[in-house]
Amino acid sequence: MSLRAKTATFLETPIVGTVIIGVIIFNAIILGLETSDAVMAQAGSLIRMLDAACLAFFVAEIVAKLFAYGLRFFRNGWNIFDLVIVGISLVPASAGMSVLRALRILRVLRLLSVAPRLRRVVEGFVTALPGMGSVFVLMAIIFYIGAVMATKLFGDAFPEWFGSLGRSGYTLFQVMTLESWSMGIVRPVMEAFPYAWAFFVPFIMVTTFAVVNLLVGLIVNSMQDAHAEESNAATDEYRSEIIARLEAIEKAVKDRK
Amino acid sequence: MSLRAKTATFLETPIVGTVIIGVIIFNAIILGLETSDAVMAQAGSLIRMLDAACLAFFVAEIVAKLFAYGLRFFRNGWNIFDLVIVGISLVPASAGMSVLRALRILRVLRLLSVAPRLRRVVEGFVTALPGMGSVFVLMAIIFYIGAVMATKLFGDAFPEWFGSLGRSGYTLFQVMTLESWSMGIVRPVMEAFPYAWAFFVPFIMVTTFAVVNLLVGLIVNSMQDAHAEESNAATDEYRSEIIARLEAIEKAVKDRK
Amino acid sequence: MSLRAKTATFLETPIVGTVIIGVIIFNAIILGLETSDAVMAQAGSLIRMLDAACLAFFVAEIVAKLFAYGLRFFRNGWNIFDLVIVGISLVPASAGMSVLRALRILRVLRLLSVAPRLRRVVEGFVTALPGMGSVFVLMAIIFYIGAVMATKLFGDAFPEWFGSLGRSGYTLFQVMTLESWSMGIVRPVMEAFPYAWAFFVPFIMVTTFAVVNLLVGLIVNSMQDAHAEESNAATDEYRSEIIARLEAIEKAVKDRK
Amino acid sequence: MSLRAKTATFLETPIVGTVIIGVIIFNAIILGLETSDAVMAQAGSLIRMLDAACLAFFVAEIVAKLFAYGLRFFRNGWNIFDLVIVGISLVPASAGMSVLRALRILRVLRLLSVAPRLRRVVEGFVTALPGMGSVFVLMAIIFYIGAVMATKLFGDAFPEWFGSLGRSGYTLFQVMTLESWSMGIVRPVMEAFPYAWAFFVPFIMVTTFAVVNLLVGLIVNSMQDAHAEESNAATDEYRSEIIARLEAIEKAVKDRK
Repeated sequence: MSLRAKTATFLETPIVGTVIIGVIIFNAIILGLETSDAVMAQAGSLIRMLDAACLAFFVAEIVAKLFAYGLRFFRNGWNIFDLVIVGISLVPASAGMSVLRALRILRVLRLLSVAPRLRRVVEGFVTALPGMGSVFVLMAIIFYIGAVMATKLFGDAFPEWFGSLGRSGYTLFQVMTLESWSMGIVRPVMEAFPYAWAFFVPFIMVTTFAVVNLLVGLIVNSMQDAHAEESNAATDEYRSEIIARLEAIEKAVKDRK
Repeated sequence: MSLRAKTATFLETPIVGTVIIGVIIFNAIILGLETSDAVMAQAGSLIRMLDAACLAFFVAEIVAKLFAYGLRFFRNGWNIFDLVIVGISLVPASAGMSVLRALRILRVLRLLSVAPRLRRVVEGFVTALPGMGSVFVLMAIIFYIGAVMATKLFGDAFPEWFGSLGRSGYTLFQVMTLESWSMGIVRPVMEAFPYAWAFFVPFIMVTTFAVVNLLVGLIVNSMQDAHAEESNAATDEYRSEIIARLEAIEKAVKDRK
Repeated sequence: MSLRAKTATFLETPIVGTVIIGVIIFNAIILGLETSDAVMAQAGSLIRMLDAACLAFFVAEIVAKLFAYGLRFFRNGWNIFDLVIVGISLVPASAGMSVLRALRILRVLRLLSVAPRLRRVVEGFVTALPGMGSVFVLMAIIFYIGAVMATKLFGDAFPEWFGSLGRSGYTLFQVMTLESWSMGIVRPVMEAFPYAWAFFVPFIMVTTFAVVNLLVGLIVNSMQDAHAEESNAATDEYRSEIIARLEAIEKAVKDRK
Repeated sequence: MSLRAKTATFLETPIVGTVIIGVIIFNAIILGLETSDAVMAQAGSLIRMLDAACLAFFVAEIVAKLFAYGLRFFRNGWNIFDLVIVGISLVPASAGMSVLRALRILRVLRLLSVAPRLRRVVEGFVTALPGMGSVFVLMAIIFYIGAVMATKLFGDAFPEWFGSLGRSGYTLFQVMTLESWSMGIVRPVMEAFPYAWAFFVPFIMVTTFAVVNLLVGLIVNSMQDAHAEESNAATDEYRSEIIARLEAIEKAVKDRK
């Protein structure tokens, strides 16, 4: 067995998976402690060191996988996911931007790729998405139309909410979530434009209806999958038996001729 | 082949559909750029010209369709949809009202009539509506009763919220969406009418229950459709086979007599 | 045919139902116009007269029904519903309280008892309720416990929100609908009681979970009903045919012996 | 029959269950009256005495059960539930903390363990939980990541909302429930960090999507259970009959040979 094959076998042993999960959780706690000023004042250098050690472990793991699998490494979406997440953590070391530092906590997302049950949940989410594609496109069209209209109609009078396409889009997202849509946004707008409700009330109805349809679609899809899987095992067995018995009777009748 | 038939064949080629989608998206971007003051200051006349060109293209498309299909054009709901949307865009050119100008962005809705998948989603929405008719009528009755009662009870004390049937209807819509219903509306009302909760809490419960029932109805309907479509193909085939085999056995047994 | 039987036959003719629906809608419009001060100033006496005429019509209808059906009148829940609603409208004439006057608009609810499709929707709602009984009792228990605890813990410090069982119940209902629960209620409470979130966050989770379960129960129930109704017709027919054919074969085989 | 067995038989008679439910409801009313200052001023000592009597009754019931069942008492989760709830009520008598006094109302929860229908609802809730385990873990991961990122990014500028992991977690829970997320939290944050929406909008989408999936999972699970239970009884019977008949025919045909 080559060293490559040995490394691959070793990486796939359950104990390695458990150790990786352990390191991820440990690193999550470390990064959580980093948010506490009191802890950082007392043990800041220790925490930074432990975090660096965790990062080194993850880099080593990815290097080992790259060595073991070669280019096949990139065929698995989860490997690329891991690579990007660990890659993000390596950037801030050089650039030092605070946003990139904050993104280091995304490493905890590696739990999704390592723990099989979580992996399945995420895969379930992802496979549900394409079926919803048309509704998403529809929502994007509705939002774009809404944002352009709101900017043209209310942009000059309420620049903070509808001053640009981006601001209108954000405000319409808020309106769709029903947060302060009336007391916060539409009532003030209606003082300047008394018929503004004729824009916002249909917008709320259409987007809510579309969201409900998305939800219904998701339910129907996963229901059918679950239903098909479960019921068919018993039904198929029963049907096979019926057909086998019918064939036996047919043969018996023919033999008698 | 007459010129009419040729035009119809030409309009139905896939390439024409793709070009139309391209023009719609291009026009959507143009209308989006129009909302930016900076862009308009620099290239305002170019953008207005490109928008007019897109509109001319749509008018030409509709004229071609009218020529190709004659009165059959009006039998398809989507054609009338296109005609109205493009028609709206032609009005402001003469009237120049800002609302009508803003409505030009509705042209992007033509994507719904051109892209087959979006078309099917919208048709799915529309076919789901009649089944919900009774619940909609019920909601309308509840809102009307609620608006009349609220106007009579609270109209004098809170004219801004309940001063007229229209205002009461809008406020009750806000209450139904649960937006600031308590801190914003009902608590202030309760300072003047301590028993106002006896009107609003049941109103919230009834309307929410009705909305949930609408949703349940939608789910059950689309579930049944999906279920019926999927399961019946396989089941029908199986059932036909069983019956055919039983008939053969019956005949074989009887022939032996 | 006695006069009683004749009256009953007459009341059940479709044209009478249509006339009643017409009068209800006409009365609804009249009561709507009554909310407008401008209309009342101009034609107040006419509107009051038309309203009285409608009421007289409804009273006459109920008297006719009582005459036609006698005590059987009270066996139908919808008749009692009509009686109560019309009865409410008769009270204010003598007492003149503004709340009772506002309740006259409830007469529009008679549409639910007259129009068959609306009647079926309401009956569907009502039959769905008993299955949800346990969850409602559970919600009542949770609210009662929550209200007692909130009154004891926060009543002295926030008398306006939690001063009595009733106020706490109302505030917890608001919290359950998620309206301003945090910025409006819990954050101010947390300034006095830093651990107040340990009461409210679980309360929100439990009540939301219970509401979701109510909804799930409703969906599952109506789904099963719909499913059973639809699929069984086809399946039962198929099963009967299979059994009939099997019996025929059995008989044919036995005859041969 | 030993005294132990007699006690067990006595405790399981329906009349005892009814008496216990009666005492729980009576105690609930007593504890409700305790929240009223007016009632306490007039009959405070009576109410405290009645409450103590109820507590004594519950203690006696548990002691009787412990005597009757011995260690088997602890095998039933509901018994431990009762023990803890009554135990909580005994603590404040000695310690006298106001929170512990407020927790006495939890005794009403004993209704859940005594009334069989409520018991089944709660057991239904509890059995639905494990299937949702993965999604809960996922939510916990998302919240932890969100809380660490929000604390790092916005903690210094908005200490009240994001000053520590706990505060960020609470604020993100509020954002997930959509309460004042935009007007109350994100718009103020966006004044300091214009790109804050790029954190909050995806957070809202992901958490809402996960909650919807939880709900869908719950619906699909309980639907399948309900479906399986209902349809299989009839179907199994039919299938057995068909197979029995086919076997009989096969045998009859073969016998003729």
